[in-house]
Amino acid sequence: MDAISVIRAKRDGQPLSDDQIDWVIDAYTRGEVADEQMSALAMAILLNGMSRAEIARWTAAMIASGERMDFSSLSRPTADKHSTGGVGDKITLPLAPLVAACGAAVPQLSGRGLGHTGGTLDKLESIPGWRASLSNPEMLDILDASGAVICAAGDGLAPADKKLYALRDVTGTVESIPLIASSIMSKKIAEGTGSLVLDVKVGSGAFMKNAADARELAATMVGLGNDHGVRTVALLTDMSTPLGLTAGNALEVRESLHVLAGGGPKDVVDLTLALAREMLDAAGLTDADPAKALADGSAMDHWRRMIGAQGGDPDAPLPTARERHVIPAPASGVLARLDAYAVGVAAWRLGAGRARKEDPVQAGAGVELHAKPGEEVTEGQPLLTLHTDTPERFPYALEALADAHEVGTLAASPPPIVLDRID
Amino acid sequence: MDAISVIRAKRDGQPLSDDQIDWVIDAYTRGEVADEQMSALAMAILLNGMSRAEIARWTAAMIASGERMDFSSLSRPTADKHSTGGVGDKITLPLAPLVAACGAAVPQLSGRGLGHTGGTLDKLESIPGWRASLSNPEMLDILDASGAVICAAGDGLAPADKKLYALRDVTGTVESIPLIASSIMSKKIAEGTGSLVLDVKVGSGAFMKNAADARELAATMVGLGNDHGVRTVALLTDMSTPLGLTAGNALEVRESLHVLAGGGPKDVVDLTLALAREMLDAAGLTDADPAKALADGSAMDHWRRMIGAQGGDPDAPLPTARERHVIPAPASGVLARLDAYAVGVAAWRLGAGRARKEDPVQAGAGVELHAKPGEEVTEGQPLLTLHTDTPERFPYALEALADAHEVGTLAASPPPIVLDRID
Repeated sequence: MDAISVIRAKRDGQPLSDDQIDWVIDAYTRGEVADEQMSALAMAILLNGMSRAEIARWTAAMIASGERMDFSSLSRPTADKHSTGGVGDKITLPLAPLVAACGAAVPQLSGRGLGHTGGTLDKLESIPGWRASLSNPEMLDILDASGAVICAAGDGLAPADKKLYALRDVTGTVESIPLIASSIMSKKIAEGTGSLVLDVKVGSGAFMKNAADARELAATMVGLGNDHGVRTVALLTDMSTPLGLTAGNALEVRESLHVLAGGGPKDVVDLTLALAREMLDAAGLTDADPAKALADGSAMDHWRRMIGAQGGDPDAPLPTARERHVIPAPASGVLARLDAYAVGVAAWRLGAGRARKEDPVQAGAGVELHAKPGEEVTEGQPLLTLHTDTPERFPYALEALADAHEVGTLAASPPPIVLDRID
Repeated sequence: MDAISVIRAKRDGQPLSDDQIDWVIDAYTRGEVADEQMSALAMAILLNGMSRAEIARWTAAMIASGERMDFSSLSRPTADKHSTGGVGDKITLPLAPLVAACGAAVPQLSGRGLGHTGGTLDKLESIPGWRASLSNPEMLDILDASGAVICAAGDGLAPADKKLYALRDVTGTVESIPLIASSIMSKKIAEGTGSLVLDVKVGSGAFMKNAADARELAATMVGLGNDHGVRTVALLTDMSTPLGLTAGNALEVRESLHVLAGGGPKDVVDLTLALAREMLDAAGLTDADPAKALADGSAMDHWRRMIGAQGGDPDAPLPTARERHVIPAPASGVLARLDAYAVGVAAWRLGAGRARKEDPVQAGAGVELHAKPGEEVTEGQPLLTLHTDTPERFPYALEALADAHEVGTLAASPPPIVLDRID
């Protein structure tokens, strides 16, 4: 077996054999297959595709490259959620404690933001004292005690995927459904959850810009999960406009607290509840009532316990940015469009995101929305407020937002937040 | 400008702009674009192609990555030949001194063999004392004195191509007409020849297995050469069976000496004369008579002068292999097929070629043919003789030759050696 013959097979449109896949993933993890060989293979996969059988084997090989976690010692059923990433997507923050409050155990291994989409760990790190890194025993203890834990994935899970993900990021080979699906699912299956709900985003602010691609990605991942014994379901959800009224780390934590306190923007509440119901169903907790757990404060109680267990002070004031800049509505009428991607890029440029893995992020930076598509605005009223510690970034954010919004005269209702369900 | 945007453009089927091509070749040469990025781009080029305009710019950028040689001080017109590589292709050896004997200057920068095709420098190095490496002034002196020089290309010519060629070799991205054409032509144009004849091989022993691909490669290269002011013409020639009766380093030198002495196998003589006529025409020496220069010994005189100028002893006995193994004809009849690729692999496995760039080659190893397709053979007569210093290699060579030949009853004439001419 050698790398060139595997690359050539995929290049020439042939399916890879089980042996070829097992060998190339293992040899790449060990460093025997070089980065320049794997990137050529990744490009051939991106352009020539993989069959369901190939994707399943590729995923299994990535799982086999590392350890698998085991939650069978917990008394509660486990349920996890994964989002393919969007702008203002803080849903994990209220969702994990909410589902825990309803009786499931939520082991949420999360990542950091790269590019225009934020990362859950970056958001939580704006809470004074909170830390993302836990050992496996610490993670299990917190999960047992507070029902939910949100932390960084350890280095032992699917190391082949870690290496390949970093490579794809710099070689233009990210946008491949087989590679995206196997990357996500190898980590989630290795993590050991019993059930999984996928939030597959569609729209300008998402990775998948159209519904057909999103549906294919969702169906691929649902198949992979169920084949590996993880009860998996996917919701296709709208990402044409940001979720809620904030994009940025501390800004999104503050909005999540509103939701946990029983308030918050309608789209965030609706999506949190829809995902909670799916997670509870998948975990077999069909009688649970997540709306009640938001209303009666039990979700907030679980949040405080979870944050505290990871060193965070749930009562400490959240950081705010030193400088603000207001963008007014250009006309009176109905906000017809507010583009998720543009807002995401603006928040990133303001300091909420990072250009390279090793860059720091600003806790207070981001974009605050004062209206959502479908709502009426008056000329001159604040439409967006930009937040940053480094005001020299404002011009770059404004450039990203130049064509981001449109005010019209017709009242058009925005799309529903949940577009479809795939199981 | 960044590598990922260039990769994405080609990946998504867009043509690369002049600026993108100039930047990526320069940045790759300088090490700013990483190997894993260039291999992903090479795979995208292989699968999505490049337009004529893109190939021309890519070639120009590779030429610009290094120095250009200048032969304008010579009193004679320069003519060069390049073969895309085949089995038993020793044509450069008699051709260069023959064309020199007819009045042109032949600056032949050659390579070493890799895989099943032999390399001109490996063949010449079987002559005791001969050395391949010359400085640019040495090369010019020899060219001036003996009319022909065959040597290794210096590191200064098209360094971008050197780096990219080594990368393609290990990443399954060799078989791309745009990348092959630009690789060959960047070196030949940087070398500074005034005219160039391309020998584009077609058949099992060639890089191009079918005539359509070979024709496209030939037309692409002819266009590139003429656009850069090098009078360029291509012959499409047969490589379904080895050229001549030998494949292997010293074996092929010996056969070349037969040709220079006025004898030698018909296909080798025919092809040598056809290429010589094209080179002389392209150089404007339309009155020259290469057949006469073979017959009257003047080509041999130029050979002796050329070999001597590079330290070689033209009178020294050539090395022979320590062990031989004869394969008899399996039946009486007409030899219907003798596969070039199988013979090339066998010669390689016997020690005539190398698996890795740094491997040594055996001077005496190779395969000797006792009949050519179309000729009658008698059961039990020697069909092939295998030569090697390391007899443990015989079984591997025999394995490669298992299906290499066929003896039939119908007399079929072999294809002509020159299949087509493209200018």
